[in-house]
Amino acid sequence: MIKAAVIGASGYIGMELVRLLLMHPDAELVAVTSRRFKGLRVGDVLPHLQGFTDLRFEDVDVTDISKRADIVFTAVPHGAAMNYVPKILENAKVVDLSADYRLDPQEYERIYKKKHEDPRTAVYGLTELHAAEIKEARLVANPGCYPTGAVLAVAPLVAEGVVAHIVFDSKSGISGGGAEPSERSHFPNLAENIIPYNITKHRHVAEIRMELARLAGTPATTPKVSFTPHVIPCIRGILTTAHVLLRDDASVPTPEQLKGLYERFYEDKPFIRILGERTPSLSYVRGTNFCDIGFWVDEDAKRIVVVSAIDNLVKGGAGQAVQNMNLMFGLAETTGLLTPSLTP
Amino acid sequence: MIKAAVIGASGYIGMELVRLLLMHPDAELVAVTSRRFKGLRVGDVLPHLQGFTDLRFEDVDVTDISKRADIVFTAVPHGAAMNYVPKILENAKVVDLSADYRLDPQEYERIYKKKHEDPRTAVYGLTELHAAEIKEARLVANPGCYPTGAVLAVAPLVAEGVVAHIVFDSKSGISGGGAEPSERSHFPNLAENIIPYNITKHRHVAEIRMELARLAGTPATTPKVSFTPHVIPCIRGILTTAHVLLRDDASVPTPEQLKGLYERFYEDKPFIRILGERTPSLSYVRGTNFCDIGFWVDEDAKRIVVVSAIDNLVKGGAGQAVQNMNLMFGLAETTGLLTPSLTP
Amino acid sequence: MIKAAVIGASGYIGMELVRLLLMHPDAELVAVTSRRFKGLRVGDVLPHLQGFTDLRFEDVDVTDISKRADIVFTAVPHGAAMNYVPKILENAKVVDLSADYRLDPQEYERIYKKKHEDPRTAVYGLTELHAAEIKEARLVANPGCYPTGAVLAVAPLVAEGVVAHIVFDSKSGISGGGAEPSERSHFPNLAENIIPYNITKHRHVAEIRMELARLAGTPATTPKVSFTPHVIPCIRGILTTAHVLLRDDASVPTPEQLKGLYERFYEDKPFIRILGERTPSLSYVRGTNFCDIGFWVDEDAKRIVVVSAIDNLVKGGAGQAVQNMNLMFGLAETTGLLTPSLTP
Amino acid sequence: MIKAAVIGASGYIGMELVRLLLMHPDAELVAVTSRRFKGLRVGDVLPHLQGFTDLRFEDVDVTDISKRADIVFTAVPHGAAMNYVPKILENAKVVDLSADYRLDPQEYERIYKKKHEDPRTAVYGLTELHAAEIKEARLVANPGCYPTGAVLAVAPLVAEGVVAHIVFDSKSGISGGGAEPSERSHFPNLAENIIPYNITKHRHVAEIRMELARLAGTPATTPKVSFTPHVIPCIRGILTTAHVLLRDDASVPTPEQLKGLYERFYEDKPFIRILGERTPSLSYVRGTNFCDIGFWVDEDAKRIVVVSAIDNLVKGGAGQAVQNMNLMFGLAETTGLLTPSLTP
Repeated sequence: MIKAAVIGASGYIGMELVRLLLMHPDAELVAVTSRRFKGLRVGDVLPHLQGFTDLRFEDVDVTDISKRADIVFTAVPHGAAMNYVPKILENAKVVDLSADYRLDPQEYERIYKKKHEDPRTAVYGLTELHAAEIKEARLVANPGCYPTGAVLAVAPLVAEGVVAHIVFDSKSGISGGGAEPSERSHFPNLAENIIPYNITKHRHVAEIRMELARLAGTPATTPKVSFTPHVIPCIRGILTTAHVLLRDDASVPTPEQLKGLYERFYEDKPFIRILGERTPSLSYVRGTNFCDIGFWVDEDAKRIVVVSAIDNLVKGGAGQAVQNMNLMFGLAETTGLLTPSLTP
Repeated sequence: MIKAAVIGASGYIGMELVRLLLMHPDAELVAVTSRRFKGLRVGDVLPHLQGFTDLRFEDVDVTDISKRADIVFTAVPHGAAMNYVPKILENAKVVDLSADYRLDPQEYERIYKKKHEDPRTAVYGLTELHAAEIKEARLVANPGCYPTGAVLAVAPLVAEGVVAHIVFDSKSGISGGGAEPSERSHFPNLAENIIPYNITKHRHVAEIRMELARLAGTPATTPKVSFTPHVIPCIRGILTTAHVLLRDDASVPTPEQLKGLYERFYEDKPFIRILGERTPSLSYVRGTNFCDIGFWVDEDAKRIVVVSAIDNLVKGGAGQAVQNMNLMFGLAETTGLLTPSLTP
Repeated sequence: MIKAAVIGASGYIGMELVRLLLMHPDAELVAVTSRRFKGLRVGDVLPHLQGFTDLRFEDVDVTDISKRADIVFTAVPHGAAMNYVPKILENAKVVDLSADYRLDPQEYERIYKKKHEDPRTAVYGLTELHAAEIKEARLVANPGCYPTGAVLAVAPLVAEGVVAHIVFDSKSGISGGGAEPSERSHFPNLAENIIPYNITKHRHVAEIRMELARLAGTPATTPKVSFTPHVIPCIRGILTTAHVLLRDDASVPTPEQLKGLYERFYEDKPFIRILGERTPSLSYVRGTNFCDIGFWVDEDAKRIVVVSAIDNLVKGGAGQAVQNMNLMFGLAETTGLLTPSLTP
Repeated sequence: MIKAAVIGASGYIGMELVRLLLMHPDAELVAVTSRRFKGLRVGDVLPHLQGFTDLRFEDVDVTDISKRADIVFTAVPHGAAMNYVPKILENAKVVDLSADYRLDPQEYERIYKKKHEDPRTAVYGLTELHAAEIKEARLVANPGCYPTGAVLAVAPLVAEGVVAHIVFDSKSGISGGGAEPSERSHFPNLAENIIPYNITKHRHVAEIRMELARLAGTPATTPKVSFTPHVIPCIRGILTTAHVLLRDDASVPTPEQLKGLYERFYEDKPFIRILGERTPSLSYVRGTNFCDIGFWVDEDAKRIVVVSAIDNLVKGGAGQAVQNMNLMFGLAETTGLLTPSLTP
């Protein structure tokens, strides 16, 4: 049994980690922390977990916790993780769900306007693209929710070197904004609406660019990236519409060629489902670790529209973190994660 | 391994049965039927199940299917089940999710305006109230979604004989209306709305009355029952607000007495969670087989307000059917069903 | 032109008053206040009003404002209004939308746990029931949103003296909770849910009891009242399901008799629409001052189910306030208020 | 008084026309048709209009109706309008809300796969861009809902000749799909979801291309157009996110220059509100004829993100039709249309 702890277990990502770890056949949840709820039983704070664990929330003592755990998940705001991670790593492996270790430290400081206190390198935990490194890693930086849906949608095309520019237009459920009430999450503001935000300046674009550059391999074949996030009146899920503009010198693939390309690229990737011209639906991934991908070719415009759907709290967060844990401990990556979606 | 088949597997209840049976550690799904989709692979018709089964939908040949199965779930419209069940019972056990075997046949004919072709007696599958009979049964009539939430909410009080009248005001997600588009399920009609329907004449009231009479034991202590269903703009879940008016000669319990009463009544019932004065939430039961119950005492009015929350497709349908299957085959009733809700 | 001012114009009720007054043919909006936004242009704070007024929010100087206005609407929290109203009344008429003047002062202090600083009597502004007094009033206490829908639903029956007990089960859009984000209004908490709250102790029940006692005329014919509010995942509207239990000695009316009773009671009341057994819909009253009422007779149970639908911000707040203003200034009560709903 | 008739008045666009015409100070609604509901009173079929008109739905006799009207609105499916319009034009003016007269007839036949029976030229009724022609027109082809939001969002930039490619990513409320229940409008399919559809092949793209070519003036400066529609879980409104990629030889404007450009282009256009970097909201245009526009400059990517919000049934349909009627009869274009949105 892998002994697992969650730092920051009362937020949405933390709650979801607790849910997944409690159901995991080869993991045991040994500690959960919450400053706000320390001392209280998990089931009293989070009634949906009543009956599933007798744990109480603890205060954050990372040294103590790391000694009791084989792996610690840090589900805390960016800027906080970098203070915990070095100490945890002395005793346990870490999957960090904050933004602190996703980017090159200089890039991090530029984007997050904050000095990096622990500029070490982590493995970027977009599991399908970095499985070999993750297996060897002691520190995995779990990707942002938007980058997960965006990069997986276009990786096969970018790796081919045929893409000039990608306009990502992403639509997220509001749970991505966290458990704290806000103007944006106020029901009368979001219901009967869709809210674009951080237009031209969402920080997740840096992760997307980093990964697409790696995939392309050369500056010449690295596409330009535009990214616009929206929140929609739904709780879970991210649907990413990727408008992929091909290079002038690229030939436009047929739908069949495209399907072949994606199927080869994602061969043996159990959480990627290639739907061809069937439309991905947030309903089909709700509560799951799947990323469903569909695509349409617009030959005249040398454009391919790729649509991906994930559950932002699972594949876009806690599920991918557990998938990474599985690899870090030599388990099949699907362990504890292969469940059908809650549909309808 | 219990070999299980689902007749009518493409509707919402049928889909949910498939989901639960595919995840069940001691059951194997051996056949699913759908007139409309016969011959097609389950994962092609229901994309969220892609990768979880290689079964194809079959036409309904109940004799053939019942020979390959230990148990058959009939998730078909009322009136259809009574034509299938006698043949299935020659070879296999049955949990019928239609209304055909829930009521006394005369009562059935009065309520459903239809001759009963197979007036045999079944065990009413409200698991918490009929476990002993269910263990011995070959035919279990799975309760309606509304009666499940309503009866469980008030059973301890009715069994005490202190109740004069119960006004059930129930609010259901629209998935209870099925997978076929209708006026009521048309998004612009239901969103930003709540729709009361079948006021004073919903057929589920007969089941509620039947069960409450059994619990009360005598006509004198059997409460009057009023029942008003509404659909709310949500997919899953039934919240039942039971306004329980006590008899003039009854003493009003304190909240602590009430909690004690409920906890004793539902002792060792793993799917009943007694919340006291905490408010049940559809979120806490989403995707689960739990029934969460809270209650409030209005001493002046000799009234108790009981609120229950269930997932209409799970505890109100497919989950309770699997819970019944577990008992019918000597398994722990929780087998394959103990999962935390998808919250948020 | 009636010169009108709104104290507390940046909340939902205040905003709605501004909308209605800007469209009113015989009123001119001369001042709006907001502590938080003082000095800012209305259209800059509330973009949907951009282009409709050049007013700026002012700080609350009630003496000054009351000198510039013929009528002042106080859309402020309870407890605040009683400090403003006496000064305003020296110069102008008042429609108070807080709870401060709705109840007898002793009852107010008991319910709101707060000393009443200005224990004067106001006219209760449930327009259809108090039109004659409202025409003569200088101070009208605008009713709460729930009492408006609840009392109008049952008034004709209560006035007949045939009712023993009414169980009001009310469902409100979340805008009734105001413009400030809260746990309850947090989208992931309310979406896919319905939340009962303040069970057995919502303060609006006092208003309902007061009005029903007036209608009944004698203690013996005054019904018992139970009231349970819920919020539903929608923005606007209150649907009230009134379960009316008749007295043992009352005869149960036929649907036709009931329709006759309601039509006579509400004769010449332009905002009451009697639907008979057609179901009221929040959609049909959205944005309007109508109260739609339907009813169903359950002869066996000596019960009548009455369903009413209002827009909580209009008939349940700002619209009724303007309706009262119209009467206070000798206008037709429909002036500026007769618009079809925004359907769908 | 302008005598107005609506052919096809029981659909969503038709209902909205009826609502607007009933409130219009200078128009009188003289006839409404509906095959399905002929003979029935409008208020009995559409309860929200009860009390606003005594009209009954008539069968479609266009000659008769056109003799009683000064203007006829044809709110019928494409393919049907072309059979009615020639006859109506003998007696009355027409605003056609179908697709039949929007495109060049050859283009129409190519896109709609249907022979055009009446290949006459109409004025394209995107009011802000064609006001002068509309004033003189007897036949106006009212634009599609998506083209209205899309073209208005980018017209000033396209007219400058600086745009290489525009990726329109549009999100619409489901009322755009009409009053008939469908798979897409089935609540469990749309709630908690967002559904892209007709990817790379929605027919409205032809209108967008036509208008942008007119604005650009020359083939060389006409941008490439990509268009992807989605339905979101809301009733009304279209939010269009226009990703505008500038030509390599164009200089990127500052936000201030952009604001100046838009304000000049839309000077004296009362329904266009330029928000700068404030985010348009469906809430602010709900029930209104406004088109709110915001924009953000991404200098590095030579990209401008323009976001527009309209109510698809008003500015995207019935409201713009009335705006066109106003011009066709010499009225101010705002007559009967200047109302604040229903917010929240």
